[in-house]
Amino acid sequence: MNNAVNVAEQLAQVTEHFAQRTIATVNDYEVKVAKLEGEFVWHRHEDTDELFLVVAGRLTIQLRDGDVELGPGELYVVPKGVEHCPLAEEETSILLLEPAGTLNTGDAGGPLTRAAVSGA
Amino acid sequence: MNNAVNVAEQLAQVTEHFAQRTIATVNDYEVKVAKLEGEFVWHRHEDTDELFLVVAGRLTIQLRDGDVELGPGELYVVPKGVEHCPLAEEETSILLLEPAGTLNTGDAGGPLTRAAVSGA
Repeated sequence: MNNAVNVAEQLAQVTEHFAQRTIATVNDYEVKVAKLEGEFVWHRHEDTDELFLVVAGRLTIQLRDGDVELGPGELYVVPKGVEHCPLAEEETSILLLEPAGTLNTGDAGGPLTRAAVSGA
Repeated sequence: MNNAVNVAEQLAQVTEHFAQRTIATVNDYEVKVAKLEGEFVWHRHEDTDELFLVVAGRLTIQLRDGDVELGPGELYVVPKGVEHCPLAEEETSILLLEPAGTLNTGDAGGPLTRAAVSGA
């Protein structure tokens, strides 16, 4: 896992929207990539913050008290326990950072739930 | 700290080579940016892995058993305890991830030691 990793090459391996691919580990944290298109589900992570960094496209992180808009090279950290719902009007590539084992749908579960696939 | 953060705008605030600017926190981890030019110092972090992601330029992470070459959009995780020495032939902008409080020079100390400056 600890080899040089090309983020774009890893994103090229992602074929399913909202699925996550782990591309590096830092102690017990995982760096993951994903492609989003459309609206995800409202959920929260009770035990952890979650970092979103947009690589390409545009991401709206909907929060109950307002939206955060991110373009390429912009990041936002959703604090632990805060409900959020990612929304991408076009296909958007992102990098995520959170503790290993964090599920994409948090407390919500449902049909979009995926364990991260190991890449690199 | 948990607002949307533009990585390039944060890098524009960095005026000293090898100094680190914290741009986001994820639980007890810090996302930092830095500009490197020239050779840093050989050092290790006994207690943590360290992630380097190149934003612009080129970075050589010298290791005792060989070099890792990184261009824009490429990352590498130096495992905990592994001696390394970053080298940038040209000014290179990077993003770093490691636990809060990790010193840039690790066990080596010396004149290039800097605590991270808080940004964002």
